[in-house]
Amino acid sequence: MRSVSVIGIGETKMGRYPDRSLQDMILEAGSAAIADAGIDKSKLEAIYFSNFNAQQLCGQGHMGAMVNEVLGVTLPTIRVEAACASGSLAFREAYVAVAAGIYDVVLVGGVEKMTHCATEKVTEAIASASDVASEAAIGVTFPGIFAMIANRYFHEFGNARDAMTAVAIQNHANASHNPDAQMPKPVTKEKVEEGFKIADPFTVFDCSLVTDGAAFTVICATDVAKTLAKGKIIELIGSGHGGNTISIASKDSLTTFAATVEAAKKAYAMACLTPADVDLAEVHDCFTITQIINSEDLGFFKKGTGAQAVLDGKTAINSGVVAINPSGGLKAKGHPIGATGLSQIFEVITQLRSDAGGRQVPGAKIGLTHNIGGTAGTCVVNIFREAE
Amino acid sequence: MRSVSVIGIGETKMGRYPDRSLQDMILEAGSAAIADAGIDKSKLEAIYFSNFNAQQLCGQGHMGAMVNEVLGVTLPTIRVEAACASGSLAFREAYVAVAAGIYDVVLVGGVEKMTHCATEKVTEAIASASDVASEAAIGVTFPGIFAMIANRYFHEFGNARDAMTAVAIQNHANASHNPDAQMPKPVTKEKVEEGFKIADPFTVFDCSLVTDGAAFTVICATDVAKTLAKGKIIELIGSGHGGNTISIASKDSLTTFAATVEAAKKAYAMACLTPADVDLAEVHDCFTITQIINSEDLGFFKKGTGAQAVLDGKTAINSGVVAINPSGGLKAKGHPIGATGLSQIFEVITQLRSDAGGRQVPGAKIGLTHNIGGTAGTCVVNIFREAE
Repeated sequence: MRSVSVIGIGETKMGRYPDRSLQDMILEAGSAAIADAGIDKSKLEAIYFSNFNAQQLCGQGHMGAMVNEVLGVTLPTIRVEAACASGSLAFREAYVAVAAGIYDVVLVGGVEKMTHCATEKVTEAIASASDVASEAAIGVTFPGIFAMIANRYFHEFGNARDAMTAVAIQNHANASHNPDAQMPKPVTKEKVEEGFKIADPFTVFDCSLVTDGAAFTVICATDVAKTLAKGKIIELIGSGHGGNTISIASKDSLTTFAATVEAAKKAYAMACLTPADVDLAEVHDCFTITQIINSEDLGFFKKGTGAQAVLDGKTAINSGVVAINPSGGLKAKGHPIGATGLSQIFEVITQLRSDAGGRQVPGAKIGLTHNIGGTAGTCVVNIFREAE
Repeated sequence: MRSVSVIGIGETKMGRYPDRSLQDMILEAGSAAIADAGIDKSKLEAIYFSNFNAQQLCGQGHMGAMVNEVLGVTLPTIRVEAACASGSLAFREAYVAVAAGIYDVVLVGGVEKMTHCATEKVTEAIASASDVASEAAIGVTFPGIFAMIANRYFHEFGNARDAMTAVAIQNHANASHNPDAQMPKPVTKEKVEEGFKIADPFTVFDCSLVTDGAAFTVICATDVAKTLAKGKIIELIGSGHGGNTISIASKDSLTTFAATVEAAKKAYAMACLTPADVDLAEVHDCFTITQIINSEDLGFFKKGTGAQAVLDGKTAINSGVVAINPSGGLKAKGHPIGATGLSQIFEVITQLRSDAGGRQVPGAKIGLTHNIGGTAGTCVVNIFREAE
């Protein structure tokens, strides 16, 4: 297995673009990543592509072949789907193919287009990531599922309302320094807690955004990268993939996600690192409680202490402990589902290149991405560092 | 890269099962493959899963996690989608992961559930494999696209109506010996040519079936297979993946599929074989003309001579040249889209085990599967032989 690195990144600004096509967003972000890598597209050997649900939302499948058409290439393409973890999983599968020596240089991208649809249709499409027969079909969609998880967390570890609010405030504040963020405006405690009620204990400010957008990376065997890349080469030093069942009813626990624990264990082992070595992490925050639970499952904080850690400022950009979601996260940067995992990687690469401007994590050396699908039925964790 | 083999296969009977759930078909075919491998499910390390469009047809995505739930495991899962080539591509990605040493034993499966929906909805869902904006949106769905291809083939190489009829007759005759076939009844020349007109020159008997069904395989590093498997070990000796654009308007040719040529070239090179070495092939026959064109692009017959080859009996089970679609193909065995590529592999493994009964290809040593997605925007070719 060869070492694999990221040599190019590109993404659209995240937002509501009901009039932009899938093709338009693919072209912008894909071209940006290829340009950022400083290579000609003729160097690409395959495309791994991630999209969650353009089939339901846009009537469009077979999107690997569409990416070929948009970018003017005729490469082998693979679409990967694992709900909200689709982007990270496409990246991981591409890594496996490059590490195995099947390809040297691969484009990995993702897109989602949602805001042209009515809210009910978006809700139905997102609910396809749940066990539809036992959940969505009886009215339990994701805000309800994660609200149950939050209430269970409160029951086991005490009320985390203040910490959830702190997550929202922090992620929005971080997003205000991210030019690609969908909601780059700071929010106050009052605004979060008095927001429109979604599912108790969530207000609308506990929920991630409905977002259109695309994100791409160019990855490469590290040895080859050294002959191709113009800029800093950021190496993938750890990668782990965990799986679990789809329904909430079949989980052993609601307050720890076994797929995250497994993916993180594998990624840390491969990187020969511990959670304490991580400087910054893009952590899946589909809801504020999810970030708190994930920060524990990733080993940054002991189980049950993630809420207090946020209140103590340990997840802030300048904390010196672990900066969580400097991009603003799914909460405030946005959640273009099929592109989300790749946008997380975009942020980590930007940070490790020291290109993150007002949201730069000081002295960032080790960055991690964490991405779950559905009720943590899928989890992918990747760890990055500048190549030696 | 390690050698990889198939040690278990399972599939449902193909058919119209509007009352069977996705879960029910996954359980039947997945359990059958694990039982056929003679292993306990605890030996499985990951699941690669293929589904084309349950998102549009059933409102269900994130099907990797669903397979975990159905089979009672909590493995890393990956859903792959590439239109009608989804199954073969999931198989190929699983092969890459095992060959790379990421996993030793992997379950690969696929499912599709279509017949519970109205015809218009099925047509719309299948059309998502085309370039919706330039094709389906103006009324050009796949029968129309492949009818244009057939007419162009007629223009370049002469009228192939008789050969298309011969393909339909042969595939239905083969299916009559396949207990898993959806339409196991022979058809006559008159029945084919006087069938309901779909898109000139196609009658309904030129078109593959709308099918519910599931198919699974268990794959394994060949070295490990020798310690695990109870039965014959069938090795994957060649695998190729080709890509192209999604729309018909962007193709250089309508009568040769560049993605097939590329995938076949790679697969033959890896296997160190030529087309003449292949004893049987499951060839993508979404329409009768498609089988003829593909038989040329796979190198079995020179361009423009595939039609005459069928009329000369060269593709028959006992021809001694190359037996094409002994299973009955998509045409008569059925086309459960996400499961189709894996059902093709099911047939080739069955043949190479000499377990194919009345449709057994005499002395079959080398078997090939060929699977395209959309208008050949994706193609995967795999070649198998009994392990030494």
